Amino acid sequence: MASAPARLLLTARRRLTDVARGQSPADLYVRGGTLLNVYTGEVYPANVAVAGERIAYVGDRDDMVGPRTTVVDGTGRVLCPGYIDPHVHPAHMVTPSALARFLLPLGTTTLFADTLQLFELGGVRAFTVVADALSTSPLKFYWMIRVHGQTRTTDEARRFPLRDVARALEHPWAAAVGEVTRWPDVHAGDADLLRRLDLAHVRRLRVEGHTAGAGAEKIAGLAAGGLTSDHEPITAGEVLERARLGIAVMLRESSLRPDLDGLLDALKEAPALASRVMLTADGSMPAFVHEHGFVDHLIRVALERGVPPIDAYRMATLNPATYFGRDSDVGGIAPGRFADICLLADLSEPRPETVIARGRVAARDGRALLGVPEPAWGRAFASPRARLTVRWRAKPADFELPARATYPVIRLVSAVITRLEERALVDGDLHAALVDRAGHWIAPAVLAGFADRLDGMATTSSTDFNILVVGRRPEAMARAVNRLLALRGGVVIVDGDEIAYELPLPIGGIMTRGTLEDAAGWEREMHAALAARGYRFHDPLYTMLFLAADFLPAVRLSPRGVWDVKRGRVLLPRRARAA
Amino acid sequence: MASAPARLLLTARRRLTDVARGQSPADLYVRGGTLLNVYTGEVYPANVAVAGERIAYVGDRDDMVGPRTTVVDGTGRVLCPGYIDPHVHPAHMVTPSALARFLLPLGTTTLFADTLQLFELGGVRAFTVVADALSTSPLKFYWMIRVHGQTRTTDEARRFPLRDVARALEHPWAAAVGEVTRWPDVHAGDADLLRRLDLAHVRRLRVEGHTAGAGAEKIAGLAAGGLTSDHEPITAGEVLERARLGIAVMLRESSLRPDLDGLLDALKEAPALASRVMLTADGSMPAFVHEHGFVDHLIRVALERGVPPIDAYRMATLNPATYFGRDSDVGGIAPGRFADICLLADLSEPRPETVIARGRVAARDGRALLGVPEPAWGRAFASPRARLTVRWRAKPADFELPARATYPVIRLVSAVITRLEERALVDGDLHAALVDRAGHWIAPAVLAGFADRLDGMATTSSTDFNILVVGRRPEAMARAVNRLLALRGGVVIVDGDEIAYELPLPIGGIMTRGTLEDAAGWEREMHAALAARGYRFHDPLYTMLFLAADFLPAVRLSPRGVWDVKRGRVLLPRRARAA
Repeated sequence: MASAPARLLLTARRRLTDVARGQSPADLYVRGGTLLNVYTGEVYPANVAVAGERIAYVGDRDDMVGPRTTVVDGTGRVLCPGYIDPHVHPAHMVTPSALARFLLPLGTTTLFADTLQLFELGGVRAFTVVADALSTSPLKFYWMIRVHGQTRTTDEARRFPLRDVARALEHPWAAAVGEVTRWPDVHAGDADLLRRLDLAHVRRLRVEGHTAGAGAEKIAGLAAGGLTSDHEPITAGEVLERARLGIAVMLRESSLRPDLDGLLDALKEAPALASRVMLTADGSMPAFVHEHGFVDHLIRVALERGVPPIDAYRMATLNPATYFGRDSDVGGIAPGRFADICLLADLSEPRPETVIARGRVAARDGRALLGVPEPAWGRAFASPRARLTVRWRAKPADFELPARATYPVIRLVSAVITRLEERALVDGDLHAALVDRAGHWIAPAVLAGFADRLDGMATTSSTDFNILVVGRRPEAMARAVNRLLALRGGVVIVDGDEIAYELPLPIGGIMTRGTLEDAAGWEREMHAALAARGYRFHDPLYTMLFLAADFLPAVRLSPRGVWDVKRGRVLLPRRARAA
Repeated sequence: MASAPARLLLTARRRLTDVARGQSPADLYVRGGTLLNVYTGEVYPANVAVAGERIAYVGDRDDMVGPRTTVVDGTGRVLCPGYIDPHVHPAHMVTPSALARFLLPLGTTTLFADTLQLFELGGVRAFTVVADALSTSPLKFYWMIRVHGQTRTTDEARRFPLRDVARALEHPWAAAVGEVTRWPDVHAGDADLLRRLDLAHVRRLRVEGHTAGAGAEKIAGLAAGGLTSDHEPITAGEVLERARLGIAVMLRESSLRPDLDGLLDALKEAPALASRVMLTADGSMPAFVHEHGFVDHLIRVALERGVPPIDAYRMATLNPATYFGRDSDVGGIAPGRFADICLLADLSEPRPETVIARGRVAARDGRALLGVPEPAWGRAFASPRARLTVRWRAKPADFELPARATYPVIRLVSAVITRLEERALVDGDLHAALVDRAGHWIAPAVLAGFADRLDGMATTSSTDFNILVVGRRPEAMARAVNRLLALRGGVVIVDGDEIAYELPLPIGGIMTRGTLEDAAGWEREMHAALAARGYRFHDPLYTMLFLAADFLPAVRLSPRGVWDVKRGRVLLPRRARAA
């Protein structure tokens, strides 16, 4: 059974009042610090007493300090609430638990996290296994419940049954429906999708939108359709267009889109927005997080940009807590809330010296002091498809293109954006294919602009959860796939007959059991390996993830085949694969 | 079945998106106005299109204007969201519906309203009857669900069974538990009360506190106990004490406590509070509302005090909507929200020229254009006690005091605050009594400082819902009671043998079927009648209401007898009444 944020047991609630009255000793007491009060914007000396997981008292008194109370010295330190990221994809290379282990020392104590991978690889059962396991984590995971895939497939209704979505939304840590990437369907009033969004509205939960590329005149229709937030603006103008229509905006600084600096200009036009906007690292990849940090990094960017400290810290604490209606649990240092406290040397440096999470000292000087439970992934991802246990082997012939005069070539123009070129093959074009994890079908394609000197690469790191294969030599491509199957997923690069690089991601084919530090190193090696073979963008993992993501322009390699996003049609169909 | 705010029907939701796209005509369109955008703080030209009850579009386009669209001319007008009061007692002399009829022309379109009278006189059934009936009102009623009475009685568990409270909280328009007047019990960690507050927390609803008189060092315990708001601060210092500990503060300007001017000083100390505090008229009586207005008055006071307009309007729109987690329904002019719009001549004058509520023109130039449904009060208040149909008659002997050398005299020192004087009777002391509505018992008392020249007065207007009787002549007191019983409740004043004044309140003994204007006139007459007999405070209705309210200092006339609040003991017991 999951620990529930709202369902504070009566004994725990009474204990809070006992400690507040000074009639029961606190478990932990932070003495002598200076409080950044996110409610009032004031900064003043205050002590904090904790009972169990929550704050019981904030003030001058210390009559709740007993002989067994852990006293934390806050002298010369600023106390601010643990940081919150309102929109996180927590299954990129590392598990949510490994991410949490890395983030706690950086002061991030709460995530509102995506469930795409859980639903796609294990359905509502995987969600429940993971959400229950993490319900006791010192870093708190609230969840956005997916109601559809990233890529349209014919069996989507089977993977996201309404009944299961509704059941997930009843989880005490569910906070929203999302991420809803199909904004054109919302705008068009698609009945099935609106019905799915309504599952959130009737529960007074939020609906996390994704409106990348939606012009100003479309936004009203998206708000009317029920999207309550958006994290996709890439200019200050787009921030304002959405905020004006009542959509809560999350300002993003991610490995894929480090845009925060420019987005903050929206506050110059509309200072009142400071009490509403939030900051998010979105789906930042391990190397970026390892190098820059997480919410601490976002706050630093805001401070360096001249945002007043109270506003910068509020955007990463009280604002997201309020938006999600969880301000009784997180977002501030006040009685009743989870005891999530960052001790800073100075307000100008958001990376904390000490982090208290859920009532215990979770980290000091960058070192984690508390564990984070690891879900039983074998139970979460139990199917042969998730575990890649279906026995089959790829052959070079799988990657031969059908004979044609011209092909709908997918040209990468950035890490994730593509252009369609209908033409004959030229030097440097790569064969590509999306292959069913069980080997039943294959969708062939031609890819340009990825990595000209790549013999063969295969990966299970794709938002459609099939196998993406790319290369100039079908033999090397087949070899990469077969090694990938032996590894139970990950990324494999083959030069000629040799395995040149391999990154095992055995948990569902998408995650390692390693740490975020490990993953960051592997990601850099992979980037270097691809760069040496011609890859020239900044985020190869996103290139792989999103090549099948048919909510992005302009042409995608989807499970149906090469897909023209704008016209909604197959340009080169998939085919059955001979066993 | 109640219309439900969150349960927007799919057809209505799709229609919003159709209108937003310009592919279906709007029902109503406000053209040419200037929008006060409470989300961004900006002021700029914008049109608003409405479909059914809600806003579909805000912007420049007008392709959704059809031949049957009602076009409202907004030229030269400022459009701001309909006003919200987060803490209202809506059954003072007039019915909630009559209050709504008066408030709509003043621009108030949403109330978060008390349920004390409903529970006390008709239980959860009365609440359901009233909340269902008002679920289609153009002025929207959200509800605070009471979990205990105002005055402690021995049968309270019967009147507020947990099961019924929980059932009320499941109503789609329920928003909070409250008002919780027993802050000392919260502070003490009383298990039964904390369990009742938890009924809100598990549903992510709010808990409306009442912390009048709680010193700074008590507030942490109240926040720890689970109170989420407070509307009782009477100084800027008290505002800050509560806000600092994460309690949402409602700044009050009521007939009983017109304190707003001073409370606003809190914003000078802590400007960041402007995005969180709210304004409330609390339980203002009809004459005050009739003279000053309602939320429009609160905004005016704030503007006159120098609060920036965006902050003043936000405190009365977006801030309360956000606090209650209803910002997808109310609080701003944006797609998806109820179409609640005030058209102002100027931002400096918050009383609107035109009011749109729930998608229709509700008022123009102070005149109401829409009706408000009236609940079936006969069904809501069906018991003999509520209807005062138990046949009995008072006798002068009922009001004789027990023989004593000294009495615990209740001395009024303000409209509602009392002091205890243990002494012999002196000239000017009045006999007083609280009498069971069915005549089974009587609690005698001595009252000083009320109205020295009053022969007899009786009223059912009391927060313990018994009959309060006061006077210097037992014959006149009995006559007042008997006339009151014939009227089925209200207020009766007797001079000698004559009925000098009577105010019938036949709905539950607390409300008239008249308008708020009528009630304001009657209230002024009653005040004048009492003043002529020696009453010297400003709010006689509150004096009557709260004489039994044992959450106020220092001595009360409760159903148990004269009650020492601080010591929690009976000073002069009630007695059975001979039939």
